[in-house]
Amino acid sequence: MTRLEQQLTFSRELDKLKGVLRQSMLMDASRRENSAEHSWHLATLAILLVEHVEEPVNLVRVLKMLLVHDVVEIDAGDTFAYDTTHVATQNEREKRAAERIFGLLPDEQGRELRGLWEEFEHRRSAESKYANALDRLQPIMQNLYSGGQSWKKHGVTRAQVMDRMRAVEIGLPKVWPTVLKFIDDACAAGYVQE
Amino acid sequence: MTRLEQQLTFSRELDKLKGVLRQSMLMDASRRENSAEHSWHLATLAILLVEHVEEPVNLVRVLKMLLVHDVVEIDAGDTFAYDTTHVATQNEREKRAAERIFGLLPDEQGRELRGLWEEFEHRRSAESKYANALDRLQPIMQNLYSGGQSWKKHGVTRAQVMDRMRAVEIGLPKVWPTVLKFIDDACAAGYVQE
Repeated sequence: MTRLEQQLTFSRELDKLKGVLRQSMLMDASRRENSAEHSWHLATLAILLVEHVEEPVNLVRVLKMLLVHDVVEIDAGDTFAYDTTHVATQNEREKRAAERIFGLLPDEQGRELRGLWEEFEHRRSAESKYANALDRLQPIMQNLYSGGQSWKKHGVTRAQVMDRMRAVEIGLPKVWPTVLKFIDDACAAGYVQE
Repeated sequence: MTRLEQQLTFSRELDKLKGVLRQSMLMDASRRENSAEHSWHLATLAILLVEHVEEPVNLVRVLKMLLVHDVVEIDAGDTFAYDTTHVATQNEREKRAAERIFGLLPDEQGRELRGLWEEFEHRRSAESKYANALDRLQPIMQNLYSGGQSWKKHGVTRAQVMDRMRAVEIGLPKVWPTVLKFIDDACAAGYVQE
């Protein structure tokens, strides 16, 4: 295959991410969100909020990272953040998925994108800390504005949400007070258990 | 409102793009594609195919442009490319939408993103030519691999598809032979009328 054929094969494969459903609902609560539109929403947030980061980031690296950070779910599925059983096997499933999916691309291009996915997972670089903060901030807004259905369904507690949201405190400290307010609102509305 | 509040208000508004349905289907033909996941797919294509452009582009500008190029559809709806009645009123409807939606943002940020949307529409800069080429290439793949339902439903002809695809010849000439092959395949399969 030519490089272009490999790239279009990968792009065709990516279409499947539109069928991977997350636990979060759209804000109008009409249906569950899929991982492709979630990734788009994160990338737009990255453009909007970049002025609030403390450590400077390379925006194009952040965007690439966010746009591909969930593609392993095509094989591995979306793992609900508060589902401890599935979280335990998540790494192994996602690693195999990365092997296959990024392996569809020309070698060095697959390595670059796989590297960005791993960087996102490791949360050490400035870019990945920012990307992870957005990956927490967007779902809390989805959950809050859709009436907390996903939280209620799973009996999620304030301590669990606080723990999950720490990535915002790390990657976007200036947005942390807003997140604390969201958590208070979610508890006050009875969406999240005290 | 603080800048952050304005930005999060805009982000909350963007959620509605996930509910704007296009004529194209997902490749598995299970349902119509929405404009949010379409925008994500275009942005990933922009990352993959940038080596094939002839005029150098600033990738971060291309990504920003593609990520916001359809947000006016939140108010104006998606206009089917081959629907001449709606295409006639499209500009006016989209201009009003841009006013309202980008107007939710802090001034200079709204101006920047609105400017990128206008640049996309005008198709003069290298970035917008590349972005428009991708905005044609992705739907032809959606249509071809989903069995041509959208083309068949609207009785689309080879001449119409050829005309629509010229943006690929302009923005991604190296990919043009592949698109010609896609069109031949679509005609041979009876998805598009000769």
